[in-house]
Amino acid sequence: MTDRPVLALDCMGGDGGPAVAVAAAEVAQERYPRLQFRLYGDEAAIRAQLGKAPRLAGGATIVHSADVILGTDKPSAAIRRARTTSMGMGVAAVQAGEAQAMVSAGNTGALMAIAKLTLRTMPGIDRPALVALMPTLKNDSVVLDLGANVECDTENLVQFAVMGAAFARTVLGVARPRVALLNIGEEELKGTEELKMAAALLREADLPMVFTGFVEGDKIGQGDVDVIVTDGFTGNVALKTAEGTGRLVTGLLAQSFRSSWLSSLGYLLSRGALRALARHLDPEAHNGAVFLGLNGVVVKSHGGATVRGLAHAIGVAHDLVAGDIARRIGADLDNFREHRPVVAANDGAASAA
Amino acid sequence: MTDRPVLALDCMGGDGGPAVAVAAAEVAQERYPRLQFRLYGDEAAIRAQLGKAPRLAGGATIVHSADVILGTDKPSAAIRRARTTSMGMGVAAVQAGEAQAMVSAGNTGALMAIAKLTLRTMPGIDRPALVALMPTLKNDSVVLDLGANVECDTENLVQFAVMGAAFARTVLGVARPRVALLNIGEEELKGTEELKMAAALLREADLPMVFTGFVEGDKIGQGDVDVIVTDGFTGNVALKTAEGTGRLVTGLLAQSFRSSWLSSLGYLLSRGALRALARHLDPEAHNGAVFLGLNGVVVKSHGGATVRGLAHAIGVAHDLVAGDIARRIGADLDNFREHRPVVAANDGAASAA
Repeated sequence: MTDRPVLALDCMGGDGGPAVAVAAAEVAQERYPRLQFRLYGDEAAIRAQLGKAPRLAGGATIVHSADVILGTDKPSAAIRRARTTSMGMGVAAVQAGEAQAMVSAGNTGALMAIAKLTLRTMPGIDRPALVALMPTLKNDSVVLDLGANVECDTENLVQFAVMGAAFARTVLGVARPRVALLNIGEEELKGTEELKMAAALLREADLPMVFTGFVEGDKIGQGDVDVIVTDGFTGNVALKTAEGTGRLVTGLLAQSFRSSWLSSLGYLLSRGALRALARHLDPEAHNGAVFLGLNGVVVKSHGGATVRGLAHAIGVAHDLVAGDIARRIGADLDNFREHRPVVAANDGAASAA
Repeated sequence: MTDRPVLALDCMGGDGGPAVAVAAAEVAQERYPRLQFRLYGDEAAIRAQLGKAPRLAGGATIVHSADVILGTDKPSAAIRRARTTSMGMGVAAVQAGEAQAMVSAGNTGALMAIAKLTLRTMPGIDRPALVALMPTLKNDSVVLDLGANVECDTENLVQFAVMGAAFARTVLGVARPRVALLNIGEEELKGTEELKMAAALLREADLPMVFTGFVEGDKIGQGDVDVIVTDGFTGNVALKTAEGTGRLVTGLLAQSFRSSWLSSLGYLLSRGALRALARHLDPEAHNGAVFLGLNGVVVKSHGGATVRGLAHAIGVAHDLVAGDIARRIGADLDNFREHRPVVAANDGAASAA
């Protein structure tokens, strides 16, 4: 890693605008004092916020951008306007080596399109993947792809496994992450041909991970594996279903507590414990999805993230730069290619017999 | 419907064996007094249990089967042994017209394979789907396919929508169910070609449903649609992810309540409310997944279901027979074929522009 990593921050993308962005940068810089910032967006608006963040000011440069990518912009339109926007200029800074990572809370599809076109995929990676951490009963799990690719083939899935394991080593600090493929059963005969082939390859490959086979959706919350690999369609549905179910249960819980004065009193007495539960599941503490597999670190923050949430996303970007994620992925892919297991098309089925 | 519908019950499939099966039949018969049973399994064991259920005895016939499909049996092996097993004989009774529906808590893959081979798919249905109810903040939603088909084309998805709507009308009593396709975004441009084409067809079709477009995973728990249609891979992952997240949140909640004496006291005071929450999410009250699209009603109970859960699954079978689900699906499919909308291959995309 460079001695003083520079982070490009899109200050216009999130619902909170430059106020939240600059405050989050200040929080992150307190946590990582060597981190420097390039702040992209409306210069006057950012300068006004920097005035309230004197400790940050010395480690931050404002780069004025006249334009903003909107949430309603189609990816194709966003690409055409990239050069004049805070999002596009931030990504370009990573490409030019002026920054080591970029964080934006803007339009996900636009960010993905601009990042792919500007930074290109790493050697050995066919398609980048969107990766994030999900809370479990134990430690957080890494889940990918969360929506970058609607359909994935065997090579994509294997590459996602390599990238996810490198992510877990870097961000979770797990030396040999347990990696599983999401499937509709744990038996080797289950699922698509792509999944069976990917499992056969990962089972034989010599990679810095423990491949544990297939895992079903109800195990995501258990935390028994560190990395869960799936295609972008399934991953997106699983992530959102988990979010929705979390809201369903907590919503029903709130209704229940309000249903009688006795329950209301019970709620008051248990408030501390319920806050601990909320902290464990806290979306802000899991904020920051990463486009893995590009020549550069790009992190997507939730549009509605608070200062704390955006600071967490910046922290993820910092950890990926500090841990030199690209070098790790590159080394693992080289190693996989050199010692690629020879697996017949029906090995998934054959070895299950 | 027939005047006195007969239900074939596999008494050997569930973890609770004939004891739970016979007790569940008794509960169901109290609820639906006209229901009659054919009880499949070990005659002596069933007879012993019937001795404890005198009210049921008059409305139940024991059919001895020497053999049982095990949870570990592969579908291919199960098919070969079907004729001598409680599961296979129960399905055969539906095919022979000796029963109008069949309920089993046994091996899902085996049941699906035997049911498909014995009963065949309905005219107009290419593949049967596994359907069940999921709890939401409002009323239950119908979700299909939950795992019968790993990959689905446009026609499969349209047929699932027709079957799911008929199921909602029959079991939930909704006159014009709101039907949505599960996708990774609500915009018409999102998702696979199969999904876009299915949406274009359903948007134009004249069916007894309100097609509301695409829905994302986080909306499953909201209850704003009555039927959620997806391929069996995604549906299986979504269902299990929702189950797992529910267990994660309630598990964390239990940990939280135990974390201090104040919280424990709070728990005691709120117990009534928490029980109401548990009832709303109760898996036993949602037990009974249906293989829709076959010439006959086949319901899969959870293997670990209690008497109450298995009785609920029997109730689902009863409702489907009483509501003549097959006739409804057949009429809707005929109507769809006769007035099939003309939709170009790129209509999904074109209409979004």
